[in-house]
Amino acid sequence: MRLLLLSALLFLGVVGAPNGDEVVSLPGLSFVPNFKHYSGYLQASSTKYFHYWFTESSRKPSLDPLILWLNGGPGCSSLEGLIEELGPFKVQDFGKTVYLNPYSWNSFANVLFLESPAGVGFSYSVDGNITVSDDDVALQNYNSLVQFIGKFPEYKGRDFYITGESYGGVYLPTLAVLILSDKINFPNFKGMAVGNGAVNFPNNYNTMVPLYYYHALVRDELYQRIAKTCCNGHIEGCDIFGKFSDPTCRNLIIEALNGTNDLNPYNLYYTCYYSPDGISKHAHIEKAMRRIAGLPVRTAAPQSTVPLCAQTNNTYAYLNRADVRRALHIPSSLPLWNECSNDVLNVYKTTHFEMTPEFEKIIAAGVKVLVYNGDVDTVCNHVMNAQFLSNLNRTILGNERVNEPWRFSGETPEDSVAGFQLKYSGNVDFVTVRGSGHFVPQDRPREALQLIFNFVNNRDYSLAVDLTH
Amino acid sequence: MRLLLLSALLFLGVVGAPNGDEVVSLPGLSFVPNFKHYSGYLQASSTKYFHYWFTESSRKPSLDPLILWLNGGPGCSSLEGLIEELGPFKVQDFGKTVYLNPYSWNSFANVLFLESPAGVGFSYSVDGNITVSDDDVALQNYNSLVQFIGKFPEYKGRDFYITGESYGGVYLPTLAVLILSDKINFPNFKGMAVGNGAVNFPNNYNTMVPLYYYHALVRDELYQRIAKTCCNGHIEGCDIFGKFSDPTCRNLIIEALNGTNDLNPYNLYYTCYYSPDGISKHAHIEKAMRRIAGLPVRTAAPQSTVPLCAQTNNTYAYLNRADVRRALHIPSSLPLWNECSNDVLNVYKTTHFEMTPEFEKIIAAGVKVLVYNGDVDTVCNHVMNAQFLSNLNRTILGNERVNEPWRFSGETPEDSVAGFQLKYSGNVDFVTVRGSGHFVPQDRPREALQLIFNFVNNRDYSLAVDLTH
Repeated sequence: MRLLLLSALLFLGVVGAPNGDEVVSLPGLSFVPNFKHYSGYLQASSTKYFHYWFTESSRKPSLDPLILWLNGGPGCSSLEGLIEELGPFKVQDFGKTVYLNPYSWNSFANVLFLESPAGVGFSYSVDGNITVSDDDVALQNYNSLVQFIGKFPEYKGRDFYITGESYGGVYLPTLAVLILSDKINFPNFKGMAVGNGAVNFPNNYNTMVPLYYYHALVRDELYQRIAKTCCNGHIEGCDIFGKFSDPTCRNLIIEALNGTNDLNPYNLYYTCYYSPDGISKHAHIEKAMRRIAGLPVRTAAPQSTVPLCAQTNNTYAYLNRADVRRALHIPSSLPLWNECSNDVLNVYKTTHFEMTPEFEKIIAAGVKVLVYNGDVDTVCNHVMNAQFLSNLNRTILGNERVNEPWRFSGETPEDSVAGFQLKYSGNVDFVTVRGSGHFVPQDRPREALQLIFNFVNNRDYSLAVDLTH
Repeated sequence: MRLLLLSALLFLGVVGAPNGDEVVSLPGLSFVPNFKHYSGYLQASSTKYFHYWFTESSRKPSLDPLILWLNGGPGCSSLEGLIEELGPFKVQDFGKTVYLNPYSWNSFANVLFLESPAGVGFSYSVDGNITVSDDDVALQNYNSLVQFIGKFPEYKGRDFYITGESYGGVYLPTLAVLILSDKINFPNFKGMAVGNGAVNFPNNYNTMVPLYYYHALVRDELYQRIAKTCCNGHIEGCDIFGKFSDPTCRNLIIEALNGTNDLNPYNLYYTCYYSPDGISKHAHIEKAMRRIAGLPVRTAAPQSTVPLCAQTNNTYAYLNRADVRRALHIPSSLPLWNECSNDVLNVYKTTHFEMTPEFEKIIAAGVKVLVYNGDVDTVCNHVMNAQFLSNLNRTILGNERVNEPWRFSGETPEDSVAGFQLKYSGNVDFVTVRGSGHFVPQDRPREALQLIFNFVNNRDYSLAVDLTH
């Protein structure tokens, strides 16, 4: 009788969460989770196994939507997103203790964090080959998602969203196109949210130079020299990316891009410093962007004598604890977890430099799109994203206001401007997050939760998160 | 014998501080000042009397330099600068108590705060006429300084600096030219420091539109439309100011400039709100700038329901206490003190829209110049100032680094970047203050003190303030 019932339930797809993957006891927890979470592996290809950590919703997991989160890099781990940005587990005290993130996205959604591609974090390739292209990653991410649905059949048909940031601007649209073609596993693919996404490499660099200038990071004389020497007198609209091949221009442009050497390029007004040990995403991503663009890595200021404001290595320390790795079902044979992998980056093949075709397909399929940008990031800047959407030539909706603010609805000051929003036909939204850097859910966790909650629930972005229904 | 000695001293010019003007007991003080201060009047013209408040140095008043501070507007009071920015007296508790500003500029200098022109704060015109032009103000400020030297002859020949901000970009250079011509009273005129100065009105507006754009305050579609419709395709270098007379362009440009309607335009990343009662400088200056440019005043968001972060009316409440006014020797017949006067602004005649000739004279005379800018101000923006100095065509000194940082030397993090610096031949420095808005000594008081201390003392801007000698 029990067997029969189990079979029936399996057939109906209402059970299936893999007991073996459930994390039954996570070390260092200072709270009792009111949600289940799972850590294990999904087969991404014949040789590649992607580690996932899945945090079910603390509201109504059986009804709440499913959200995939992908960090970028390439080479950076989505567990960084889990622990330092939008997941429920925040690590402190040099990896000793874990407290609850009150702004976790799993307060209203089932959130899947996937380490991608192989070589990133706890993900691996059985043959050690970690060379991949954008399209390989898309396919392997898609395969992993199908595997996930196989492991968790109760999520088949669930409202599904894919989200992420940075190089996720490539990962997500290329993945979305594959998801769109699979109505069996993903009949309710509803939306894509891309934060500070690298959706147009050339234009990221074209816009970066004037962005620096208007942020007091390039002196006027050099700016005018670049305009005159390389751009027929006009920086704006200049194919600066294309000028990288001209040695004279290349040197001038690199000189300009050195303007953030003494700053945190991910958040211009951040006042603290990161660990100089080089394992952090906070050196990796910009390095990746420059590498893909064929530019030399910037020379950051020597930071060895600079005090750190926070314990930046909490995530690293925590995820490399033997007890934590056991709890997460990580094979003991795997090497140390790193936030970002240079090995992956060094062999990564970027082939998509501009994501318009993918966005067009996604929009045409009726999947809603949110592009959001922390507005004080210089690594993947908001002007690149604004121009990208503008160039899709969609109709601007709403009133004639230049900038329609959205407001964080929560603590005092209740009505502070969280940023600006622009709505286009076809369910395409562009939202800036004022004063946030590259990592929006880290810099502005409250605003990020409100943003994604309202995006998923088709609500005004200024409305407060409402978990009562 | 005493009379004889007094006469001799007067002759030698070593005494003279007017006893009648000394503030012997200031209400609400929570500390005992270790410096003298004076409040009284200087005759600026046959009919005009300017109120001054002079805070002597708490170090060595008989040796330390003399610094004039002027707020702008036009119409705003330099007592706002004294209480809210760089003076020793900080008011709290709705005007009830006064505590010591640890970053007061009078920690190393004798600082003269002058309310200018008549109609501003406690300054008045005996015939009620408060209509003045830029040149009138320059002359009246100069006359007031001569009067000051008459009252305080011990400061004759003292190293002398003039400083200020905002519309001080006009007040200071026009005044400097007059001071230069008076070697009798001001034989040691050493320098001028202008913060977020309105040194080039047309270019302030020309640069403001792209500045907004690169700060996510103008949507791409409108920006491109302005470029196409009004600027032959190129915003940068476009005579946007000149396009105000074209109705189509004017409307588009005003629409773009409405991008800060929901923000504090003096500091884009400020998260609090100011009093909606309209007496604050925080509505006045931008209004003044727009009025002078012939633009309509912006429509700020309704703020009546918005909570205030701080007691914004402390200065107003304090300076209108009867006991405070008595202590400051203010005639009881004078009306309420206001931070900024609309009456003055409404009849003010701006005639200097561009300050190059004055700067050229000042530099040629060997007077050193510091132009500094909080870099997140949109009202008098740093690009306008950068281009202004760049267009003086002076030689850039120092190494080839695009942006040479200067660092605040004080608390942790010790080496945080305070901004960037650029040195030109002729003792002309351009310094940005990172993350500061329009009112640098208010937003970044520690950095501002370090900046002005090192400017006066010909030291590297990154050196810590050293009051030991």
